[in-house]
Amino acid sequence: MSNPDEILRAAESPLRDAYSRAGVDIAAGNAAVARYRDVTSAWRHPSQRGAIGGFSGLFELPGDSKRLLVGSTDGVGTKILIAAKAHRYGSVGGDLVNHCVNDILVVNATPLFFLDYLAVGKLDPEVAGAVVAGVQAACRAHDCALLGGETAEMPGLYQPEHFDLAGTIVGIVDAAFVPDPARVAPGDAILGLPAVGLHTNGYSLARALIPEAEWTAELAPGLTFLDALLAEHPSYFRAVRAIQEVADVKSMAHITGGGLLENVPRTLPETCKAVFEQARWSVPPLMAELVRRGALEPEERYRTFNMGVGFTLIVPVAQAAAARDAWPGAEIVGWVESRRDGEPAVVVHPARS
Amino acid sequence: MSNPDEILRAAESPLRDAYSRAGVDIAAGNAAVARYRDVTSAWRHPSQRGAIGGFSGLFELPGDSKRLLVGSTDGVGTKILIAAKAHRYGSVGGDLVNHCVNDILVVNATPLFFLDYLAVGKLDPEVAGAVVAGVQAACRAHDCALLGGETAEMPGLYQPEHFDLAGTIVGIVDAAFVPDPARVAPGDAILGLPAVGLHTNGYSLARALIPEAEWTAELAPGLTFLDALLAEHPSYFRAVRAIQEVADVKSMAHITGGGLLENVPRTLPETCKAVFEQARWSVPPLMAELVRRGALEPEERYRTFNMGVGFTLIVPVAQAAAARDAWPGAEIVGWVESRRDGEPAVVVHPARS
Repeated sequence: MSNPDEILRAAESPLRDAYSRAGVDIAAGNAAVARYRDVTSAWRHPSQRGAIGGFSGLFELPGDSKRLLVGSTDGVGTKILIAAKAHRYGSVGGDLVNHCVNDILVVNATPLFFLDYLAVGKLDPEVAGAVVAGVQAACRAHDCALLGGETAEMPGLYQPEHFDLAGTIVGIVDAAFVPDPARVAPGDAILGLPAVGLHTNGYSLARALIPEAEWTAELAPGLTFLDALLAEHPSYFRAVRAIQEVADVKSMAHITGGGLLENVPRTLPETCKAVFEQARWSVPPLMAELVRRGALEPEERYRTFNMGVGFTLIVPVAQAAAARDAWPGAEIVGWVESRRDGEPAVVVHPARS
Repeated sequence: MSNPDEILRAAESPLRDAYSRAGVDIAAGNAAVARYRDVTSAWRHPSQRGAIGGFSGLFELPGDSKRLLVGSTDGVGTKILIAAKAHRYGSVGGDLVNHCVNDILVVNATPLFFLDYLAVGKLDPEVAGAVVAGVQAACRAHDCALLGGETAEMPGLYQPEHFDLAGTIVGIVDAAFVPDPARVAPGDAILGLPAVGLHTNGYSLARALIPEAEWTAELAPGLTFLDALLAEHPSYFRAVRAIQEVADVKSMAHITGGGLLENVPRTLPETCKAVFEQARWSVPPLMAELVRRGALEPEERYRTFNMGVGFTLIVPVAQAAAARDAWPGAEIVGWVESRRDGEPAVVVHPARS
């Protein structure tokens, strides 16, 4: 259905000046979502199960309703244009696979297999080989089969050095182990796993704010803009499994397009809000620079970028310290409070410094 | 792995002048396949099963090794450029879903769910809605869930009115019901199901041979070039199920890129060859015209286009007539003979007329 929620994340936003400046049309996104809803509401397969927050789709395993197959399709977005221009193809495969792994991890699914779609204007075997090697390496790191895929050479649709990369992951989860956001309660703690950069979102804006001529310049000592822009989207699979060993994880969110403001509410009950305190984690230098260059208001920052938090887990406060200590880099980034009518579902207190 | 076999179909061809004239580079395809093999041969998931002919990938269902999940990813190819230029978006969704359905049908799989990937330069909600409506309708026709998908707006990668559409299907099959090409024997009959046009292959060449200015002209009485070019890739699911009711189907092939010459051998034992007799079926007018304009040699025709046969099934000769009568349009198009060393795996006898 070209997941309505997927688009909604990018669309239901009052303040998207930054994005519209970069050529991404939010009103069109809203309208497309409405049409997808019309199209898909007419019929729904009886084995489809409601997905949490729309990160993935759930389907009852035929003959075994206690287990669910979980599917998700995603692309790398315009990050790929930077990789193509810089002739750096090693990390886009990992970007793609890890993004998909994290999307199905939200419902606690373990990856089974992956299929990739690589579309090129002119097939360069070295480039294609490097891209697929990255896909394979990231799959193997998750004991996930690279089951197949398609490489399409389409002169006329893509410019010679351009390419697009998308992929589909299928995982499995016991129905009893799918997190239930209804269990989230005021007083719970929110654990954040660190982002290494933009991951796979916000690149249209980033490309507008950081011209190619600057890519080789240093953003921070020993770190070029290009390094920062192409930093690989990490998988949070092992971190989540480690934290689940020591804590009762009630709900999780993958912080992709829409940032904390749009992704976290998808995994909260209506009666709760998430309160983040920026001072509790550090913002990667690239995002700090983009905020400065774009003069992005706080609302815009937390809606366009992950701002340093790549994945959130909600745990009982009594287990929060143990959960944090279970994975290097994990931090307690906020807490859950009760939400009254008309209040926003997410509040971010700005950094004190 | 950007399925090596998928690419091989387009690549392992001695005579691809026509394609190279249209900008598709076969040598590059071969080289990419070699690299994919290097990449994927280093590790293979223990639950992966060998797929027949590479139309799809097979994966043992965790906890139930008697059943296999079957996955396949495909795109619509440059047919999409014609649809976009003509502003006709209704059939590309069906093209995509039906292509994928047929790919997993080769191993006898029944569709479970589908996910789509729509990438656009500028998101037009009407266009996106029409595309996804076509996807949903074709899914519903197969009782297949449209489980999710992704719509990506990527200014800079796609021109404003361009888009790309790919999708992934997941189906299921009992391991005991996967056809075994080793059972094919000399004397078996080959049943063909009719193609309605190019389906989703050969469009780079077709676009080169039929300029846009001619699209509205009549190819045949009451049929414009555009109608013929955009004729929807049919699903052979119901036809195959009907034929299986009356015949022991030993092997099947989906005739996509590579035509009869490259797709049928993928589902034959080494000891057999397929002998087709062109007079037994009719070539759609569009393909006849393309053959004429491109002055395509027989070898080229049967490698680039399906030439009117969209799907083949191999059945015992004693059941061939019943199998043919089980589905309107099915024809006995050839037979299986024993193959000696050095003989080609497919022979097509030209039409007598």
